[in-house]
Amino acid sequence: MKGSAEIICVGTELLLGDILNSNAQYLAQQLAQLGIPHYYQTVVGDNVARIQQAVAIACERSQFLIFTGGLGPTPDDLTTATLASFFGTPLIERPEILQDIQQKFAQRGRTMSDNNRKQALLPEGAEVLPNPVGSAPGMIWQPRPDLLIMTFPGVPSEMRAMWQTTSVAYLKQQGWVGSTIYSRTLRFWGISESALAEKVAPFFDQENPTVAPYASRGEVRLRISAKTASEVAAQQLIQPVEAAIREIAGADCFGADEDTLAAVVGKGLRSRSQTLSVAESCTGGGLGQALTAVAGSSEYFRGGLIAYDNAVKKVWLNVEAKALETDGAVSDIVAQQMAAGIKTQLQTDWGIGITGIAGPDGGSADKPVGLVYIGLSDPEGHTQSYAYHFGSDRGREWVRHVSVCTALDLLRRRFL
Amino acid sequence: MKGSAEIICVGTELLLGDILNSNAQYLAQQLAQLGIPHYYQTVVGDNVARIQQAVAIACERSQFLIFTGGLGPTPDDLTTATLASFFGTPLIERPEILQDIQQKFAQRGRTMSDNNRKQALLPEGAEVLPNPVGSAPGMIWQPRPDLLIMTFPGVPSEMRAMWQTTSVAYLKQQGWVGSTIYSRTLRFWGISESALAEKVAPFFDQENPTVAPYASRGEVRLRISAKTASEVAAQQLIQPVEAAIREIAGADCFGADEDTLAAVVGKGLRSRSQTLSVAESCTGGGLGQALTAVAGSSEYFRGGLIAYDNAVKKVWLNVEAKALETDGAVSDIVAQQMAAGIKTQLQTDWGIGITGIAGPDGGSADKPVGLVYIGLSDPEGHTQSYAYHFGSDRGREWVRHVSVCTALDLLRRRFL
Repeated sequence: MKGSAEIICVGTELLLGDILNSNAQYLAQQLAQLGIPHYYQTVVGDNVARIQQAVAIACERSQFLIFTGGLGPTPDDLTTATLASFFGTPLIERPEILQDIQQKFAQRGRTMSDNNRKQALLPEGAEVLPNPVGSAPGMIWQPRPDLLIMTFPGVPSEMRAMWQTTSVAYLKQQGWVGSTIYSRTLRFWGISESALAEKVAPFFDQENPTVAPYASRGEVRLRISAKTASEVAAQQLIQPVEAAIREIAGADCFGADEDTLAAVVGKGLRSRSQTLSVAESCTGGGLGQALTAVAGSSEYFRGGLIAYDNAVKKVWLNVEAKALETDGAVSDIVAQQMAAGIKTQLQTDWGIGITGIAGPDGGSADKPVGLVYIGLSDPEGHTQSYAYHFGSDRGREWVRHVSVCTALDLLRRRFL
Repeated sequence: MKGSAEIICVGTELLLGDILNSNAQYLAQQLAQLGIPHYYQTVVGDNVARIQQAVAIACERSQFLIFTGGLGPTPDDLTTATLASFFGTPLIERPEILQDIQQKFAQRGRTMSDNNRKQALLPEGAEVLPNPVGSAPGMIWQPRPDLLIMTFPGVPSEMRAMWQTTSVAYLKQQGWVGSTIYSRTLRFWGISESALAEKVAPFFDQENPTVAPYASRGEVRLRISAKTASEVAAQQLIQPVEAAIREIAGADCFGADEDTLAAVVGKGLRSRSQTLSVAESCTGGGLGQALTAVAGSSEYFRGGLIAYDNAVKKVWLNVEAKALETDGAVSDIVAQQMAAGIKTQLQTDWGIGITGIAGPDGGSADKPVGLVYIGLSDPEGHTQSYAYHFGSDRGREWVRHVSVCTALDLLRRRFL
């Protein structure tokens, strides 16, 4: 343990409120997991004098400064040059960075512009912090023996990849990591945060591991965090709590950590050597996209039909004109015929059909926005459908998202 | 205009990364709209000494301090007491607040706990900043003639309600609101941030309106921000700059503000009363999802096929077995046959076919991960295909995302 960290996010877009500061949250979580104390976060705009002032304050009270933003090729990307001048260190062009940037441009069939040259400049004595996903690298620099600086681009995916591939190992090796916080996140679908919180309330009072609930976009999560010296010790603390919570939650818990509903469904299909096809109306391809977001999904996912137009439902899925006329395109019978139709057409073991009213328009008194029917056709040839009221107040994108998740959850529960 | 604002968010949960700092973004947007300059944001934990240090720094460089968090009833809610002690002002219990809190508890059928008494304490001379939705009020306080302080709870809904119902009017009445900042964001696809920056470099030196670039997920944006007294005046400043940039950028600029590639493509189809269908392999439904994310897309989007399995490509799209064997599923010819096949099958004016290697597996020397072919079949029956190398380093999700955007962009450019 060498001291405390401070996160300094550079970017006028943060001061204008154009973007949410998700980088600060991610880094804060990472520091907490590594047991590195962290007492301040600062946001400052693309302005040399104010960046310098933020550095002056931070290096008096913190020993590890983490910068995000301001590493791009444009004139208002000032972080590296400002740090160099603050510590009176010259900038030196690193040929290896220049080469790397040129290669990345070449890979994408583009030629590097002169602006990008500045991204190859680092203060004398700084190490390159490689960027595996983007063009701009960061740096690891000790301008003083008692001060560590790391810089990252503002693009979250690049910052996270750089942190994971280089920073974590560096901090461990340099003795920054004390007693670590290991977390495991249990993921739930089909139960509300308050309902789940009531069921597992006693766990919220625990000290080590702690249990904390989070909800986002229809999914509920419980994070179990243990503060220990080793991962093994953490698992010994976490396992019994996880087991007890899974026991209480039952089928509503679909997985942990990186598990997604689509990945869990994929495991179920693979283990049964069964295949799946989908017919989507209101989700317009979102269910297929979720399924194929899982690498290797071609093993069990044959494909699907985006049956946005009723003619397509009729001709390609054999949905009866009568059903469309009498019950309407958004109905139990059409959802069933879509599921059965795609299963037959693509010769798969399972078929899913989704039809609904995503909104904002198209709702009526008896069929309001947010009404969605999901049909599921199983290997035995039985087809059932289920009706859901997702409401209109959260908007079109929400209705489509929860429809996709609910369809995946329906099939997942059939595997239990 | 009386000076600049600083946002100070108090809460250890922010330092642990348990929550996203959406309050800072909301307040930043509000300040920008009111034209109140705002150069710093600080996040600090529930700790008296560190809150005091943050106040000491902030009141030297800013004239309006906005605090969120630390107004609750628990012992680690420290904001009000710490501010009072920092400025050497006694806390006084406000009977009207106490009454209000008691009433709110009564309304919810609960009785107020002694803890809540502390929420009725405000520094001498501070005004109550009423909380219409929660129990804890904030304050409006001028501890010095040149310093304005407002405090808000950390709960976003309460903070926002208080800001809207009281703060905005107060700031206007007190002469804090000067010229307002109006922004317009131009959006680009098919050009890198650095290449665009070079083309429009002279604009970056402008004072009013300012022009600033940023990039995310393959898209580049230029924000034009004008500081004026009225929206009309702002538009008069922004319009010529926008026109000049559009002139320079040409076809690479696809829209502004809320425009998406899918919405622009939709406009183009609607204005021509033409229809579109898609055949997707590696994007697995993502193109359909993007198109149907636009409300009303059923007017021009018939549907599509997720042809994940080669058998599906053959049977449903009439992709030749020979092409699949000789050229492979990821090839110009298959992309073309997919586009032409879906156009024919769904009887649309346009057809798009996408086939590629999203990774992480499935790549080879001659067909690496990130290689994507997009076929476009037009109303005249001509079909072309285009090859792209999106690279492997940004991962499967990136390859799929830029494939969808590039397909939309191809069709968009045909409409120019």
